[in-house]
Amino acid sequence: MGKHSEITKRFLLAAKYQEIQALHHLSSNCRTVEAIKDMIHQLQRERGMSNVFLGSKGDRFTAQRDHQIESSQECEQDLRSLLKSLYLGNHDNGQSMRLLSSITFALQGMDHLPNLREKVSALQVNTLESTNAYCRLIAGLLDVIFEAADVASDPEMTRLLVALFNFMQGKEYAGQERAWGAIGFAESQFDSELCDRITALTESQQQCFETFSNFADAEEQAMWAELANSDIANNIQRLREMICALAKGGDCSPELSEVWYDIATNRIDAMQLIEEHLTARLNKQAELRIKQAEDELRNHELLVASLNNTPAHSGSPFTMLFDASVRGLRGADIREEELSESATLSAHKSFYELIRGQSQRIEEMAGQLTAAKQALNEQKVIDRAKLLLMQQGKISEQQAYRKLQTSAMEQNIRIAELAQRVVQRVEK
Amino acid sequence: MGKHSEITKRFLLAAKYQEIQALHHLSSNCRTVEAIKDMIHQLQRERGMSNVFLGSKGDRFTAQRDHQIESSQECEQDLRSLLKSLYLGNHDNGQSMRLLSSITFALQGMDHLPNLREKVSALQVNTLESTNAYCRLIAGLLDVIFEAADVASDPEMTRLLVALFNFMQGKEYAGQERAWGAIGFAESQFDSELCDRITALTESQQQCFETFSNFADAEEQAMWAELANSDIANNIQRLREMICALAKGGDCSPELSEVWYDIATNRIDAMQLIEEHLTARLNKQAELRIKQAEDELRNHELLVASLNNTPAHSGSPFTMLFDASVRGLRGADIREEELSESATLSAHKSFYELIRGQSQRIEEMAGQLTAAKQALNEQKVIDRAKLLLMQQGKISEQQAYRKLQTSAMEQNIRIAELAQRVVQRVEK
Repeated sequence: MGKHSEITKRFLLAAKYQEIQALHHLSSNCRTVEAIKDMIHQLQRERGMSNVFLGSKGDRFTAQRDHQIESSQECEQDLRSLLKSLYLGNHDNGQSMRLLSSITFALQGMDHLPNLREKVSALQVNTLESTNAYCRLIAGLLDVIFEAADVASDPEMTRLLVALFNFMQGKEYAGQERAWGAIGFAESQFDSELCDRITALTESQQQCFETFSNFADAEEQAMWAELANSDIANNIQRLREMICALAKGGDCSPELSEVWYDIATNRIDAMQLIEEHLTARLNKQAELRIKQAEDELRNHELLVASLNNTPAHSGSPFTMLFDASVRGLRGADIREEELSESATLSAHKSFYELIRGQSQRIEEMAGQLTAAKQALNEQKVIDRAKLLLMQQGKISEQQAYRKLQTSAMEQNIRIAELAQRVVQRVEK
Repeated sequence: MGKHSEITKRFLLAAKYQEIQALHHLSSNCRTVEAIKDMIHQLQRERGMSNVFLGSKGDRFTAQRDHQIESSQECEQDLRSLLKSLYLGNHDNGQSMRLLSSITFALQGMDHLPNLREKVSALQVNTLESTNAYCRLIAGLLDVIFEAADVASDPEMTRLLVALFNFMQGKEYAGQERAWGAIGFAESQFDSELCDRITALTESQQQCFETFSNFADAEEQAMWAELANSDIANNIQRLREMICALAKGGDCSPELSEVWYDIATNRIDAMQLIEEHLTARLNKQAELRIKQAEDELRNHELLVASLNNTPAHSGSPFTMLFDASVRGLRGADIREEELSESATLSAHKSFYELIRGQSQRIEEMAGQLTAAKQALNEQKVIDRAKLLLMQQGKISEQQAYRKLQTSAMEQNIRIAELAQRVVQRVEK
């Protein structure tokens, strides 16, 4: 009576052991995420300088670009070494196929960076082609961060990764906005299309930074609020309005191109501090969670050992079968033997409470995880819905987004909910 | 130019290798799911017989119950051996902590089954207490199926597991309905509460079987339609109506108790055929997917080997950087070098197409997975919303469900969507 079988004890320990393994994998992924954050930042700088170089037909930024390429290459070497040591050491690394596959895709692009750089140096690609190539590589690297967030199973860590992914995605949209603006100023082309693009990218940034704020800590939120209310942000806003005004006609002094580029660059560089705060917290949290879980495993082992030396409880056994807090027959709300009936401490009781506690904690965690992963996927769903509307109605991205926005307002639901419905309706 | 680094090739193979590992884990889980399906069926029978035994103060079903207990014990031994061999062989079994933890909780209950049986034999528990204990154990076992579905990463397999979980949950509600009816008939207690409980369980069954149907194949749908339109189903429906009519007063012949029990049992036994169809398909699919993935790995290895012997392509490299089908700069829809420009077959081109294809397949799979897992979680979300409404408004489960139903109709949204909002509002 009240005896727990050997196999139950072993499963309790196996579950904790696997939690620790999963946290180690997650910790590896956090180190990857940090290295990718650095790589993306270098590529964003290189993309910007390449554009100035191409725009000036090779006159300007030659030395700066060479210097930047060296920095990018150094960063790439670090990233490659890290990826190799983290994921290619063991035959079975226990990692998700999706994460490894996203790394493969990004690596494929990095393999051909030298080729892109040669083309830029020889002025064999135009600004748009070069920008596009860098954007693809950065999108591939961002996908790795997305997968790292999506495969994480610790809610607190997932929340951090969702915040970081959205922040980095927002920063990349800021980089794309800088590129479009620079192209516009360089070619003095200010049409309504450019205004539409800038507006679309501005709105996407807002969405990303909103999701980031929902999952960031107070300090990061404060850092972001400071940046969002800074002179830099105000100046960017003024320049955006100017671009849209120029689309309707008017003159533009050529110096504005440099002003736009510098302010947009200052803004992007300032974002780096927040990224660093997030990754520092991420790695600290990973260490902490591993330590916690290891302590818990030791406690579990001690309890199991003491259980083997403790005679079984003579009264009612501590079991889920008679635990009124466990959902049983639906509609029955009878109170049976309370588990707390015996005030004496018993290893058997602790053992049951441990198992019960673990299963309750998992239920709570599952709810938090679902919420974080839903937020992670929302942007993807909105993007997919936009693409579907663009294909169906032969409309622009901006028009598709307006359509989603209007319908969501009419139906009084969030834009992400509406996008979900659009996708479901089409894919059925 | 056009050269792929060694590390990119190794990541491509590592991703495929990990996919195979994940499929092996999934295949183990499918075998567990099948063994648990059998265990639950035995426990449902044992629960029913124990109720007849307790209801008759030990007069009836003594031999049948003993015989059933033997069958249950045999089934339990099989399940325990399987669990041990599948999950406790290696120190690092690569399984999810959540799955192992749900197994631990169910095992804890099974450890104390002998104690429950002794209490029933000695008439030390009443029908409700005994039913409740069996229900808790079955709920714990169903949780293992839920987790197996939730950790699966193959869309087709996940769909099958979602269908199976919902079917088994529906079957369990049918078992609980049988128990409540039997208690009512045995004690000649027909009040509005009993009618409410039967109605709530009927509606829950409908929900479960609807989700099952959405994810089942044509054959399973036909099997279910046949059962749903059978005499058994019609008779159950007539008896349900009779129970609710009796709540308003009226006589009830004592033979009805046996009729109810037999018809409900026939219905539950008939469901077993569909369960078996699902698990057979599940195990076949697992084998098939492993074989497919292993073939793919071999092809990848051959391609990588031939890549090492093929000189790099002299023209434009096949890379994601210049692939117009990869999303780059937002708003740019320029057509660049098409990848198909060269008609000559090239291992380098195949290599890129492989990587690109894999990343596209993952994106598609992610969408399908999300849809299946959403359906899996909907019932949990509805249950949580009901519980919250019950606690807030001090109302019954049935009233809480009606409230959700009415609000969903008023707002013209699905009940699961409304439940999600209720939960989010409260948990924020």
